[in-house]
Amino acid sequence: MAIHTFQPQLYYNNIGSYEPALVINDGDTVITSTIDARGWDHMGESVAPRGNPMTGPFYVEGAQPGDVLEVKLESMTPNRDWGWTCNVLAPNVVDPLTATTLPTLEIVRWQVDAAQGIARLEKPTPGLEYLNLPIRPFLGCFGVAPSQGQVISTATSGNYGGNMDYKALVAGVSVYFPVFAEGALLHLGDGHATQGCGEIVGTGIEISLDVRFSVRVHKGKTIKWPRVESDTHLSCIGNVRPLEQALQHATTEMLSLLVEDYGLSVNEASLLLGQVVEYEVANVFNPAYSVACKIPKAYLPVRKS
Amino acid sequence: MAIHTFQPQLYYNNIGSYEPALVINDGDTVITSTIDARGWDHMGESVAPRGNPMTGPFYVEGAQPGDVLEVKLESMTPNRDWGWTCNVLAPNVVDPLTATTLPTLEIVRWQVDAAQGIARLEKPTPGLEYLNLPIRPFLGCFGVAPSQGQVISTATSGNYGGNMDYKALVAGVSVYFPVFAEGALLHLGDGHATQGCGEIVGTGIEISLDVRFSVRVHKGKTIKWPRVESDTHLSCIGNVRPLEQALQHATTEMLSLLVEDYGLSVNEASLLLGQVVEYEVANVFNPAYSVACKIPKAYLPVRKS
Amino acid sequence: MAIHTFQPQLYYNNIGSYEPALVINDGDTVITSTIDARGWDHMGESVAPRGNPMTGPFYVEGAQPGDVLEVKLESMTPNRDWGWTCNVLAPNVVDPLTATTLPTLEIVRWQVDAAQGIARLEKPTPGLEYLNLPIRPFLGCFGVAPSQGQVISTATSGNYGGNMDYKALVAGVSVYFPVFAEGALLHLGDGHATQGCGEIVGTGIEISLDVRFSVRVHKGKTIKWPRVESDTHLSCIGNVRPLEQALQHATTEMLSLLVEDYGLSVNEASLLLGQVVEYEVANVFNPAYSVACKIPKAYLPVRKS
Amino acid sequence: MAIHTFQPQLYYNNIGSYEPALVINDGDTVITSTIDARGWDHMGESVAPRGNPMTGPFYVEGAQPGDVLEVKLESMTPNRDWGWTCNVLAPNVVDPLTATTLPTLEIVRWQVDAAQGIARLEKPTPGLEYLNLPIRPFLGCFGVAPSQGQVISTATSGNYGGNMDYKALVAGVSVYFPVFAEGALLHLGDGHATQGCGEIVGTGIEISLDVRFSVRVHKGKTIKWPRVESDTHLSCIGNVRPLEQALQHATTEMLSLLVEDYGLSVNEASLLLGQVVEYEVANVFNPAYSVACKIPKAYLPVRKS
Repeated sequence: MAIHTFQPQLYYNNIGSYEPALVINDGDTVITSTIDARGWDHMGESVAPRGNPMTGPFYVEGAQPGDVLEVKLESMTPNRDWGWTCNVLAPNVVDPLTATTLPTLEIVRWQVDAAQGIARLEKPTPGLEYLNLPIRPFLGCFGVAPSQGQVISTATSGNYGGNMDYKALVAGVSVYFPVFAEGALLHLGDGHATQGCGEIVGTGIEISLDVRFSVRVHKGKTIKWPRVESDTHLSCIGNVRPLEQALQHATTEMLSLLVEDYGLSVNEASLLLGQVVEYEVANVFNPAYSVACKIPKAYLPVRKS
Repeated sequence: MAIHTFQPQLYYNNIGSYEPALVINDGDTVITSTIDARGWDHMGESVAPRGNPMTGPFYVEGAQPGDVLEVKLESMTPNRDWGWTCNVLAPNVVDPLTATTLPTLEIVRWQVDAAQGIARLEKPTPGLEYLNLPIRPFLGCFGVAPSQGQVISTATSGNYGGNMDYKALVAGVSVYFPVFAEGALLHLGDGHATQGCGEIVGTGIEISLDVRFSVRVHKGKTIKWPRVESDTHLSCIGNVRPLEQALQHATTEMLSLLVEDYGLSVNEASLLLGQVVEYEVANVFNPAYSVACKIPKAYLPVRKS
Repeated sequence: MAIHTFQPQLYYNNIGSYEPALVINDGDTVITSTIDARGWDHMGESVAPRGNPMTGPFYVEGAQPGDVLEVKLESMTPNRDWGWTCNVLAPNVVDPLTATTLPTLEIVRWQVDAAQGIARLEKPTPGLEYLNLPIRPFLGCFGVAPSQGQVISTATSGNYGGNMDYKALVAGVSVYFPVFAEGALLHLGDGHATQGCGEIVGTGIEISLDVRFSVRVHKGKTIKWPRVESDTHLSCIGNVRPLEQALQHATTEMLSLLVEDYGLSVNEASLLLGQVVEYEVANVFNPAYSVACKIPKAYLPVRKS
Repeated sequence: MAIHTFQPQLYYNNIGSYEPALVINDGDTVITSTIDARGWDHMGESVAPRGNPMTGPFYVEGAQPGDVLEVKLESMTPNRDWGWTCNVLAPNVVDPLTATTLPTLEIVRWQVDAAQGIARLEKPTPGLEYLNLPIRPFLGCFGVAPSQGQVISTATSGNYGGNMDYKALVAGVSVYFPVFAEGALLHLGDGHATQGCGEIVGTGIEISLDVRFSVRVHKGKTIKWPRVESDTHLSCIGNVRPLEQALQHATTEMLSLLVEDYGLSVNEASLLLGQVVEYEVANVFNPAYSVACKIPKAYLPVRKS
């Protein structure tokens, strides 16, 4: 149960079977940092090419293809006092005819006060002078090496995680990934101080983070898509276009979860989900969209396995 | 500001320019009832063909094409002690290959205790014996006569409302519809005792309701899609397939709302929505899917108009 | 087997159960005319509001819900010497980011020489001076009254036909519609001198037409979507968004056709379709997209029924 | 202008920056062979794991990121006398409710007579005894190393080509790929004796091929998606889900082609495409769907560049 402090030197813009940056054991904790989506670090210096450069990969001893890697997100804290966002809705989230009228995109800076937990525009225009946003920092992009030796851009996501940009993955939450490569090879980065659903301006408040997480390897358990446990919900995440298919993946995985872990029949799981399921549109911007299928833990039966 | 008590005699399975069932004035309140999606009334008797038979239409004096009709949902209360649902996930909400393995659909009855606010399966299988669901009654299908004299099945929805099956439209909420026909011609029905997001088994807990609502006509105000105001949120609803386009309609309407009612520029509205927007999948089952784009009122600027 | 000459006086912008404009018998032929999508007739005069005003409806004696109405398109000939198109790709057929750069839409006129079968831009810009297009006139919008008494805008389409804008529905082709109302109630209009796949500028070369067609009622035969027979192909048309679902409807109907009319098993029909099927994107512009699933008649087995 | 004969020893199930199997020069011709989608070679022996194992990669001297690689497909000939297909429609190409009724999938063998150019089921059931299909061999999966060092499964496709399963890419056609890596690194495999549109049973008639192709490097020319030239058409291919977006990519690329290579304005290109464009659904089965946007060469203006 070691605690590792890891200072990244090299960042990858793909997720894949790269040389491990650090080898850790099942149960270990890592204290590290991530740079922002454009490769800007805690000093605002450009230390890697843009496009979600990743810290890692972390090789977890004992993690084998077919296992599950649990990543407990212990803390994510902005390590500088500013972030940035785009200032125009992505053209694919408005009607095509409205898209033809959108203004030109610019990058806008926000002040981020991690101690007070508040973000404000650096130079608010009159209409937004009132705006103070509570921050809820999370990692926009993290996951394990994909199947079959693939090496895939951090622009997108899949069953291995990746650029899901899901705002619910905050400190305190555990995320479970299917393992496809020896050691799982966990990558992480693309910190956001906060974000709405869908990442509809193409960014959260992009920022560098100090991150603390721990890992656990679960043997003899197979999952097909990332799963999440928070204090209040179990969730399954589907990553693909279009939205309907992302929702299908997430719902199918939730059905498996209820049948396998809680011993429900397909009919029972359907009766339950039909009346209590919640969906969250994590991102509707990236090459793969992300949808979470969620069930409140309050409505779950006793766990069977 | 009259209060009308209206006992429906005739139900329509389309929404359109039918003869008014009742003529009311701007500001009036109506106390009435709706039968369930299969046409079963408070006694469980079949009084209309299946497919969301509607109470109404209610003709609102003074409502003209181009106006907005506000419908304040004052109360919706189950008026019988049972409802029903389907017991299998809809084949379009799971992966196509999983769809090929789904069991046969059956109708299942639930006990609904309106006084205690609880629903339970009438004959729970062992896996679901524990299940008590709080009810949150709402109208699955309601809206105004569509544009241009169209008469459209209550299976679907559009900019005029219709079968949106949106579980957030509970008592206390105001819904705003664009008016397309003289008198607006409000139809309502398809009560649900509760429902998860998406109506993914094809039903909520389908039930007959006692309904109380009031209406207000807003002149000189044009909207393109239904809007909603609750204690905590403003929302816009888009109704169409696929999900991405429903989300586009809802987001475009929210953009208009922020620009027109709150005086924000497109860039300001984008900066705000990007970090605080929420989406809700109202239904992913009907011929038109429904997505709500929501903004917490806590983050809104001062209203301009 | 009468031949009727019908001069329309009234045009509907919806398809539905309107009073018949003419009652005809099974086997009869009708010679009539249609005005263009904006309501401009053979003289270029505006005689109806824009939005695909329809000639008809024609009530066919003996056609009952559950039957099939065959419409043999005998001839469609432009009855004026000009048509019009839009001059910009629809924003939904290009990448969203490209959509933001599209020029403003204008209406452009084309000369149409029906005798020579040629269309040319009236005022070609230098880049298109060479362009002579062979015409292939067809009806963009035609169909029968929809199910359940619905009245639906001619902007869209469904299982009853409507605004399919399918360029393959030229003279010589038979189109089969499911009958939903007594007399079937055939509507027709929205003539195009020619068009590419998808109607991607939102129009074909829009023009008024002289039309000759005949009808036959097929009893004891049920279809779910429009079917087409040409000299070379059998086709089934699905009308809905998104494209994938339109393709699903068309393919499902083709599967039924091969099983019911040709006696193939689902496996046999799959083996055949998998290697010979063709798809055509009829329109990717209207509220419902249209996709045709086609099989060359050369590969069909002997018909069983 | 050398002619290389290359006997593959090693096959990759991803497309990416692997060690070159052979280095060739601009203008060279290669005579080689491919094994089928399951890794079965000309003798029917399993020589590689399933999932479209690739011959190559071929490193083309002088090809640099930003260039275009032209691959002229000179000949593709089955080198064994049988192929195989699946025998059930993919569940995603029929209505979801119909998907729940599909029979279990089996692999079925076909006799392939390359000399006569005919394919027949090995054991035809009575309904398909008549069936003789002309073969049109093509490569289902080929392309160049993707951008940014990515290594991507041959199950899918992208702007680098890959598993497009496009039946029009037969002998005589030239395919143009954007170059992302030094040497372009061309991979090829997944031969099909023939196939319908969409690969709707999940396979063509899968077979091993003898292949002859030549390459040319085009400097100073940038394309974003694969382009195709045949005797009769220019085409652009978009690879992504959903179908509408694949169509958007293909149409956007065609717009660029007409503007850049033929000097048309966006309005001129729109006027032309609107009336003559053709779309082809290459595959509607793989993780990325493929749509071709085609223009008949007969309607093109004089080429400018």
